[in-house]
Amino acid sequence: MKLHWSPKSPYVRKVMIVAHEARVLDRLTLVRSVAMMSRINPEIMADNPLGKIPTLVLEDGAALYDSRVICEYLDDLGQGGLFPSAGPARWRALTWQALGDGLLDALILWRNEREKPQDRRTQPWLDVFEAKLHAGLAELESRATDLAGAPFGIGHVSIGCMLSYLDFRFDSLGWRNGHPKLTAWHQEFDGRDSARATEILND
Amino acid sequence: MKLHWSPKSPYVRKVMIVAHEARVLDRLTLVRSVAMMSRINPEIMADNPLGKIPTLVLEDGAALYDSRVICEYLDDLGQGGLFPSAGPARWRALTWQALGDGLLDALILWRNEREKPQDRRTQPWLDVFEAKLHAGLAELESRATDLAGAPFGIGHVSIGCMLSYLDFRFDSLGWRNGHPKLTAWHQEFDGRDSARATEILND
Repeated sequence: MKLHWSPKSPYVRKVMIVAHEARVLDRLTLVRSVAMMSRINPEIMADNPLGKIPTLVLEDGAALYDSRVICEYLDDLGQGGLFPSAGPARWRALTWQALGDGLLDALILWRNEREKPQDRRTQPWLDVFEAKLHAGLAELESRATDLAGAPFGIGHVSIGCMLSYLDFRFDSLGWRNGHPKLTAWHQEFDGRDSARATEILND
Repeated sequence: MKLHWSPKSPYVRKVMIVAHEARVLDRLTLVRSVAMMSRINPEIMADNPLGKIPTLVLEDGAALYDSRVICEYLDDLGQGGLFPSAGPARWRALTWQALGDGLLDALILWRNEREKPQDRRTQPWLDVFEAKLHAGLAELESRATDLAGAPFGIGHVSIGCMLSYLDFRFDSLGWRNGHPKLTAWHQEFDGRDSARATEILND
């Protein structure tokens, strides 16, 4: 299977962590693909009209996207057990995933916005992104004991990738301040083989 | 259960269509909640740090989000059958949902961007949004026969809501031009009870 991949995308990293955990990494052929908000990449668009990564192309030519769909597919393929099959555990894991993904969405938009010249930035958007991040971190700190106690799953993958992305692109925010339980949980996440093998390194 | 709701959000509409189809509408208490990119809504934030709608609060106080998670939860609750349980039918339906949701994401950002004064717009973003929409419509036109032939599911819900949102906010684009099969499919979608009961009306 072909995976449109980049070493710096946190959404791609979700997929790579799942591929490691579910032991299906050797089934993937990685194709380096750059996706930007201001430019079309025809190679990605040929497989996914949204032009985003990750995009997975199966042996029969069918394309799967986005990261949530690919993660569930690979977990199913390798029986990784990262998606609880039913009941409250499933809804909790999927909502944790949505929280991690939703904060990542805000962070990516935030980064695009703050890179503009000052007079072209929309300050209320920047203020809202920051408020949502702080609310998200407060929520995660209050749930850190639940998070640490639950079997490792797709929610942990997404939240871990989001926190590591903060280290990568928003280091100056110092997200660990005031969030000791979440800090401890993230350290545990960071020590997993799947996280170490997919770490996003600074240039 | 409490649903943070708005009559104009296409993501909320996905949830309402699923609630109709799975016959669990009477379990929902709708609370009108306005979510904007440039302003925090504390009532939504109290339940969801992402500050977005739809957000569902269960009887036990647990909050579920985003629309994908809520749709799957309500479908499971009412055994609506909108989420194929496994195999290729599931990955196809989930990827169709991701395509509909992803185009909606682009349309919402596009609308926020085009409402800025001309000199503060980022033209490459607008160009990319438009190119992705056209690629998405071309993909859907080429898959319209598959779409019409598959049992009605979550992919149909998302794509139908996205096309109706084009009518609501991007009428001047004339999306039906060059997409006769997709037009016919959307007309069929529009005729379903669940779609008629949740139609987004112009002011």
